[in-house]
Amino acid sequence: MAAGQRLPSKRALAAQLSISTITVEAAYGQLADEGYIQPRPRSGYFVSPIAAPLAPAPARPEPKAPATPVTPAWFADFADSAAATEDFPFSVWAKIYRETLASRAEALLTRAPAAGVEPLRQAIADHLWSFRGLAVSPGQIVIGPGAEYLYSLLVRLFGTANLFGLEDPGYDKIGKVYAACGAKCAFLPLDEDGVRPDAIRCQQASIVHISPSHHFPTGIIMPIRRRYELLAWADEAPGRYLIEDDYDSEFRLTGRPIPTLFGIDTAGRVIYLNTFSRSLAATVRLSYMVLPPALLRDFRARLGFFSSAVSNFEQYPLAEFIRQGHFEKHINRMRTKYRKRRSQLLAAIRQSPLGKKAQVIEAGSGLHFLLRFDTDQSDDDLTARFQRQGLNLAPLARYYQSPPPASAAHTFLINYAAVKSEIIEEAVRRMAACLEI
Amino acid sequence: MAAGQRLPSKRALAAQLSISTITVEAAYGQLADEGYIQPRPRSGYFVSPIAAPLAPAPARPEPKAPATPVTPAWFADFADSAAATEDFPFSVWAKIYRETLASRAEALLTRAPAAGVEPLRQAIADHLWSFRGLAVSPGQIVIGPGAEYLYSLLVRLFGTANLFGLEDPGYDKIGKVYAACGAKCAFLPLDEDGVRPDAIRCQQASIVHISPSHHFPTGIIMPIRRRYELLAWADEAPGRYLIEDDYDSEFRLTGRPIPTLFGIDTAGRVIYLNTFSRSLAATVRLSYMVLPPALLRDFRARLGFFSSAVSNFEQYPLAEFIRQGHFEKHINRMRTKYRKRRSQLLAAIRQSPLGKKAQVIEAGSGLHFLLRFDTDQSDDDLTARFQRQGLNLAPLARYYQSPPPASAAHTFLINYAAVKSEIIEEAVRRMAACLEI
Repeated sequence: MAAGQRLPSKRALAAQLSISTITVEAAYGQLADEGYIQPRPRSGYFVSPIAAPLAPAPARPEPKAPATPVTPAWFADFADSAAATEDFPFSVWAKIYRETLASRAEALLTRAPAAGVEPLRQAIADHLWSFRGLAVSPGQIVIGPGAEYLYSLLVRLFGTANLFGLEDPGYDKIGKVYAACGAKCAFLPLDEDGVRPDAIRCQQASIVHISPSHHFPTGIIMPIRRRYELLAWADEAPGRYLIEDDYDSEFRLTGRPIPTLFGIDTAGRVIYLNTFSRSLAATVRLSYMVLPPALLRDFRARLGFFSSAVSNFEQYPLAEFIRQGHFEKHINRMRTKYRKRRSQLLAAIRQSPLGKKAQVIEAGSGLHFLLRFDTDQSDDDLTARFQRQGLNLAPLARYYQSPPPASAAHTFLINYAAVKSEIIEEAVRRMAACLEI
Repeated sequence: MAAGQRLPSKRALAAQLSISTITVEAAYGQLADEGYIQPRPRSGYFVSPIAAPLAPAPARPEPKAPATPVTPAWFADFADSAAATEDFPFSVWAKIYRETLASRAEALLTRAPAAGVEPLRQAIADHLWSFRGLAVSPGQIVIGPGAEYLYSLLVRLFGTANLFGLEDPGYDKIGKVYAACGAKCAFLPLDEDGVRPDAIRCQQASIVHISPSHHFPTGIIMPIRRRYELLAWADEAPGRYLIEDDYDSEFRLTGRPIPTLFGIDTAGRVIYLNTFSRSLAATVRLSYMVLPPALLRDFRARLGFFSSAVSNFEQYPLAEFIRQGHFEKHINRMRTKYRKRRSQLLAAIRQSPLGKKAQVIEAGSGLHFLLRFDTDQSDDDLTARFQRQGLNLAPLARYYQSPPPASAAHTFLINYAAVKSEIIEEAVRRMAACLEI
């Protein structure tokens, strides 16, 4: 029908098609709601003018192969920083989830504040007190679906006029996330104690992101002197902050946990950040940060209108999981497991031909160390050789933004948390074979 | 001890304190790891120089009252756009969750791509085909924890050089989220068909965020002619996109669902966005968007490194919930419920003194309508009066960024989804009392 044309009356069309007038009425009503026809008082319905041709009805596309690129399955993936997955506490988790659904229906359906639900923040505050000696109030804690989300909140909080200083070398994803969120980043060179205060000053960064308990990938533990130097830098001018990424502090396998920078900060210049994605499973998206009071006011005033990005259906069960002591038990069990795995791997290296041709570089913290090979092969050649043997190893040089120093050559990162015990000996044998020893 | 001072030998200290040498060794090792002391080969341990005074051990703060501001409990909250909570399908959800934990342990612990897990994207694609007639491939779907998160992804995708055009009046949170993410926003005036293409051109917006199926708060359904005008605008120059926020299309209560803009877009200029936070519960943080192919390539290249921000422990159960037909059943049940609630509310208004002193403005879509009162009271006075009666009502004028037109006065938004049936008559009675009728 052409624009402006009058439609048959409802009664006429109903008679013509032998259907009820109510059906025609519903159809005309729907066409009018969508704007195809217009009613005019006392004269009926008229076709609306529409500028464009009507699109043909879409055909359902053929089901295609999954469009997501498939990642290769490695025999052993030492480049993946995931946690071990075989010990996820499924039965306890299922039990707590069921109980939460049964007993907390109303809370589950009540909107959470931007920073997360109170019981989870309380459970985390209690955990930080007993495990990290940190005295924080639940109100200072902000929960988010993964550390990346919290980084993006920090960019929103500080704004993109600030220069974010990042460790170089470092975990490349941190810089990518900050940059994707619009932040300007400066890469700060390290010495053997971690980030250098003179480099921060020279580059004029105002927000500095560090992992003082266990630097990734070098494993450096920042000594107490350097920590005080950084705190002094932060306290020199307003608007300077340190983000302490405490990502695997639960897994120091020798000695006691390294105390936090947050704990010795008396000026409110440190944001503490940690994640359950590392300690429970990478697929549980739950991280948190602790804001100093001044930032907390800012967060509430400027970002408090956001919805919490973590479902209540995850927050309440996790709160119970921690409160009932299961998180601590899980961490302890995993620490024992990782300690065994690390010893097994170190022994396998020592006992293989690698023992004389590779040097382990570590400080006993966290779930990775470095392995420096005595070889003439380039890092690229060696990486390719490893890959042909089903081994995924990332060279240390890859984690530098600036040109890597000569000392970084022949050095590879060994993430062992997700490498199963039963393949360790074979993985080390293949590694040695790649070095032709 | 002073900087540079030598510590007693391990053996001497062990003897002096009558403890084992191993204990002293562990303590010295920890102090060295943290940087308090330094070993020198063949001469023992020496105190490191530290610039700052050591901080005193923190005292655990007294437990405080919850720091989160408490929201007042209303007798009836018509300003809250939350869904009804009394019908959340707890028992089905619990059953599916338990089954997923029991049968999909490996998938649950395998990292999800940035856009979400395949089975959920497949389930959503199937749902969009059968419910919305949209032929999309699962690979086009991006899952995120809430619409706000997806808005922030879109800002990252388009960059902050683009001007985002938003409906005025509109849902105020959308603009706040875009602005918090660093996007520049322009507010676009509406006419009775929705956003005006000449306003988009005049303000030079390049990304326009609209809800054509059911505009918030006016309830406008964008007619087909205006849709083609907007598509023509988008197709005129590269880099122009329309974001179709289809937030409550499941709940058109009269007639059939309004077809989407996405479905008639042949040029790949529309991003379709919808959320389960609205159809299941506000506390389930799960939304999705469908990207046209060109943007999909961009998303994968520039944002594909992000981790999915939704836990697998939510994604897999929801995929099953949809696949087994429970989502459709839930939607149908809720639609019936909302239809009853709406009729009850409209009848209560009609039968009360308001029947003659208030006009209902709506187009039969979604879970809110407007109520215009025949009154001399100002919106502020009336809002305050309502509040004293335990009624939370937001005036339409509040949703304008520009000065609201005179026609917006005395008009209030009625979100009825979360207002329980048993209080509707009393709420209407109190409303009428506030109007002194």
